[in-house]
Amino acid sequence: MAKAPVLTPQADDFPRWYQDVINKAELADNGPVRGTMVIRPYGYGLWERMQREVDLRIKAAGAENAYFPMFIPQSYLTREAEHVEGFAPELAVVTHGGGKELDEPVVVRPTSETIINEYFSKWVQSYRDLPLLINQWANVVRWEMRPRVFLRTSEFLWQEGHTAHATYEDARDYAALIHREVYRDFIVNVLGIDVAVGRKTARERFAGAINTLTLEGMMRDGKALQMGTSHELGQNFAKAFDTTYLSKDGEQRLVWQTSWGVSTRMVGGLIMSHGDDNGLRVPPRLAHVQAVVLAIKGDDAVLATVREVGDRLAAAGVRVQVDDRTDAPFGRRAVDWELKGVPVRIEIGPRDLENGTAMLARRIPGGKEPVRLDALAELLPKVLEDDQAQLLRESRERREANTSDVRTEQEAAEVALAGGWARMPWSELGPEGEARLAEQALTVRCLHLEDGSVPDGDDVPGTLALVARSY
Amino acid sequence: MAKAPVLTPQADDFPRWYQDVINKAELADNGPVRGTMVIRPYGYGLWERMQREVDLRIKAAGAENAYFPMFIPQSYLTREAEHVEGFAPELAVVTHGGGKELDEPVVVRPTSETIINEYFSKWVQSYRDLPLLINQWANVVRWEMRPRVFLRTSEFLWQEGHTAHATYEDARDYAALIHREVYRDFIVNVLGIDVAVGRKTARERFAGAINTLTLEGMMRDGKALQMGTSHELGQNFAKAFDTTYLSKDGEQRLVWQTSWGVSTRMVGGLIMSHGDDNGLRVPPRLAHVQAVVLAIKGDDAVLATVREVGDRLAAAGVRVQVDDRTDAPFGRRAVDWELKGVPVRIEIGPRDLENGTAMLARRIPGGKEPVRLDALAELLPKVLEDDQAQLLRESRERREANTSDVRTEQEAAEVALAGGWARMPWSELGPEGEARLAEQALTVRCLHLEDGSVPDGDDVPGTLALVARSY
Repeated sequence: MAKAPVLTPQADDFPRWYQDVINKAELADNGPVRGTMVIRPYGYGLWERMQREVDLRIKAAGAENAYFPMFIPQSYLTREAEHVEGFAPELAVVTHGGGKELDEPVVVRPTSETIINEYFSKWVQSYRDLPLLINQWANVVRWEMRPRVFLRTSEFLWQEGHTAHATYEDARDYAALIHREVYRDFIVNVLGIDVAVGRKTARERFAGAINTLTLEGMMRDGKALQMGTSHELGQNFAKAFDTTYLSKDGEQRLVWQTSWGVSTRMVGGLIMSHGDDNGLRVPPRLAHVQAVVLAIKGDDAVLATVREVGDRLAAAGVRVQVDDRTDAPFGRRAVDWELKGVPVRIEIGPRDLENGTAMLARRIPGGKEPVRLDALAELLPKVLEDDQAQLLRESRERREANTSDVRTEQEAAEVALAGGWARMPWSELGPEGEARLAEQALTVRCLHLEDGSVPDGDDVPGTLALVARSY
Repeated sequence: MAKAPVLTPQADDFPRWYQDVINKAELADNGPVRGTMVIRPYGYGLWERMQREVDLRIKAAGAENAYFPMFIPQSYLTREAEHVEGFAPELAVVTHGGGKELDEPVVVRPTSETIINEYFSKWVQSYRDLPLLINQWANVVRWEMRPRVFLRTSEFLWQEGHTAHATYEDARDYAALIHREVYRDFIVNVLGIDVAVGRKTARERFAGAINTLTLEGMMRDGKALQMGTSHELGQNFAKAFDTTYLSKDGEQRLVWQTSWGVSTRMVGGLIMSHGDDNGLRVPPRLAHVQAVVLAIKGDDAVLATVREVGDRLAAAGVRVQVDDRTDAPFGRRAVDWELKGVPVRIEIGPRDLENGTAMLARRIPGGKEPVRLDALAELLPKVLEDDQAQLLRESRERREANTSDVRTEQEAAEVALAGGWARMPWSELGPEGEARLAEQALTVRCLHLEDGSVPDGDDVPGTLALVARSY
């Protein structure tokens, strides 16, 4: 089948390719209010599966879901000085409700540390109430000057975890647990995206945190995307909201806290990590449609076989969809499924039936080959796992190939401006070098050690800084 | 164990009992902005299971999830005249974003018919695009003058389905399908609440609908609660947003639409349908904790047994939690679980171990009996199903016992003011009688036929009106 030139090639114009994929694969539309987005069913299907997988891991880490109001009194925001400074420019403000002007304007949550602390301070009385481990799935609003669908939108969907602990160590360890066993495990093993893990520099930290752990993915244009963050909040919010507990030895103490989140931005990361000039490539473990069985023609034997194969694959645990819409041309349907990145297409026409075979088209490695119909159900789970592994391998190889060790700020800037990642000793760069790089729109994505692990502090000997352009 | 008088008895003050249960079972708190609520983990666990069960049924009905922005340009609302009239008094309005006054104020969605139609009009081109079946899980805002947690809150969580069809009949049938196979099936078979089903009178219809199907539950104080609604929108929004399609015979036609929703209000309905003076009673099929295994004392043998029983029940498919917090008094823990309405408590202490038994306390019928430890895993699924059935039976018997057939408006008012439901011929009452009842805060909850089925129109002979006080 001849490829229709439906997408701008990545090499010609990566941002336009991204927008093309979003339109043609029917992932999302721009909303009517600037910076908002409509997530269409196929795009939402990706997010729904992300939610499910992340939620399982959050529950395994002991946190429980809850829901806090999205309207926050403006006065709450101002209680933590750095926090309000970080978020004030992005706030949406409700001034009228029920036909009247409100006595105190309320803001739409940009994140929920403040309102959640208001309740933590009521719920936490004694050491027996700790740790308090809460998560919520919600929409948040941050007014965006330069919006881009999934990556920076005025309203987005996310989960935000908020916890309170008795000691600094407990909070630090929990932030690290979420970073490692929820986010890293999910992004690497389900999304198939290799990530650099590390801590943010003071300049890049969350507003109100004493430490921010991050996961940074390399997109196919070489830019970095922050895929998720886990923050140690220290006692900053506890002080602002007087969140204290009675310790075992009878003293009133401030709690230590964490917060952590991943958002619909991950859908953007998925597109830009795995997509190619033919569209999306969805990792099989994530895909809500792992395989589609296509009837090439609408004759009875073909339709019966297509449905039977669909049933057999479903029974084998494959998330499968049958495409028997034979009133639309086969070629167009095949291109549509390719655009949508469904890992496997099984194409069946009259000639295949004669041979007792189907054409198996694999989106991730590409290519087609005939496979015996009676072998499909056994073969497919293995094919899907192989293709899952390939995406991660590609992602890892891309990151390794495009990361260069350098010694100076100047070299780092050259590498990063050319579209790669530069790795250099943090002791050589420092906050001053970081500030100069920022003038060229380059940032330190994270600090990590030689072996890729996360340093305990900002100035641990041997710490490396990863410098890159980013989304 | 002596019962602590933790709750106001229902017979003394039902609204206060309701508020007591919400506080003591840690279901929710009031939010800082008037009319908003914080849903605490145990309350959210109920909602999460409701979401899961409803979502399964929505998907089985062929609809797909998507997400539309919560910010709607004010001008959209005004396009459908009845719709804006219905919702204008309840709107929250954002006037400032990103530090500036907005050119056009935006409203926070009170429901999404308008913004969704804006996109349906782009997505629907031909009859091949129909039916278009979309659902979204979201928060909505309707400014409330008399808020009550779960029942009427300024922000609440819900799902809203929105569909477009080629013909009137298709839309009518789909609204009925959702009403019957999603909502009724869920409410009756999972929530264990018996409901009256029927159509709303013109006065009580959704703003912009040509027909509203409803499900009305009878609470334990005799008042009615609308548990969910499914609307035929006719072509009202299609006209306002020019949502048309090219028919098979080449003509441009307006689509026919439906919308339908259930919300966190169902949590309130659950509390008021099944709760008693000792707290909540959660139907086993809904419960995220179906059974709790309690260690009475912290000795090693007891703790080991409690955990082993927990594992065995989990393996038998029971959603089980182990309570081994023996640093807190057993009596208080037992009362807490009773308050939270966990269907089954399995209490194990040293003396039980000697006998090879546990005490099985069933929240729904009440009472305790010793059961052999090795019989628990086989027994429990049956106990849970029996108790599920009992809740529905109680609910049905209550509705039957408290519904009276009457002939006149005056009799209907007497019955309803005394806390029952009155059923009378709609032809005798009519819109004028309905308007007079409204002056006494009595409403026609729905119209149905003698056999409980839904009439096709407002004036079908034999139609009965159900008159009651309501939440």
